[in-house]
Amino acid sequence: MWIEDLTDEECDAVLERAKVARLATCADNRPYVVPISITYERDGSTRFLYSFANLGQKVRWMRQNPFVCAEVEELVDQRHWTTVVVEGRFEELDPVQHRDEANRAYDLLHHRSDWWLPGAARTSSTDLYRPVVYRIRIDAISGRRAARGPSA
Amino acid sequence: MWIEDLTDEECDAVLERAKVARLATCADNRPYVVPISITYERDGSTRFLYSFANLGQKVRWMRQNPFVCAEVEELVDQRHWTTVVVEGRFEELDPVQHRDEANRAYDLLHHRSDWWLPGAARTSSTDLYRPVVYRIRIDAISGRRAARGPSA
Repeated sequence: MWIEDLTDEECDAVLERAKVARLATCADNRPYVVPISITYERDGSTRFLYSFANLGQKVRWMRQNPFVCAEVEELVDQRHWTTVVVEGRFEELDPVQHRDEANRAYDLLHHRSDWWLPGAARTSSTDLYRPVVYRIRIDAISGRRAARGPSA
Repeated sequence: MWIEDLTDEECDAVLERAKVARLATCADNRPYVVPISITYERDGSTRFLYSFANLGQKVRWMRQNPFVCAEVEELVDQRHWTTVVVEGRFEELDPVQHRDEANRAYDLLHHRSDWWLPGAARTSSTDLYRPVVYRIRIDAISGRRAARGPSA
């Protein structure tokens, strides 16, 4: 099996389709990875992943260290798969201080990602439901896919 | 939607079935996450994920900082999904120094995970194929799944 790089346009297309990513965070040199619901938005060269979460380990770690990495994949079988890896920085969208961005995030996520919302699920009936809305400001994107062999 | 924790036995079962995980590594407080092929093995309280990779960023980072985190998931739809998160430490299996463990890893991986091998794929016809065999010594496992609501 061979792997080839995706173009920027191909990475965009994968991120546009994606509803779930795996978000890696890091604190005190310990990594942590969990699935999140996402919506991708691009405005020229500025690119974001929008998401939300309960106030748990992931959010506490991103407040401590905003550098994150997210992975999206499209798996069919051994010979047909694509992965895109995003590096970026956590930006919390306070509903008062960042009202427009937070509302935009709610709209996007409600429209795109309502099929699978572990980030907002409750773990007990006594949890106070306080989702943290945030986005990842993307600094770099790379993508790869399985290929039949070298084209040369 | 509600979330409930998995028992140890349920986490084991998910890991037994898993062929792919997302491995998070961390260097200089920057996280990195990529999919890997895995095989799970438990011997009493000692538990490992076996895998292999080309000598790239992931391996270089794990040599620098052995603490890793891996995530496995079984997704069906909004109301039926399970995720298991593993924390552990990278152990490289040198084919000379750790011959038995490396051979065991090769056997396990060949038997279980041959359908999807990005970790060993080549990116050009001139790459020298030198897979690094390694395992993750598991320190902690937690698992969650979607549930209909609080059972109380």
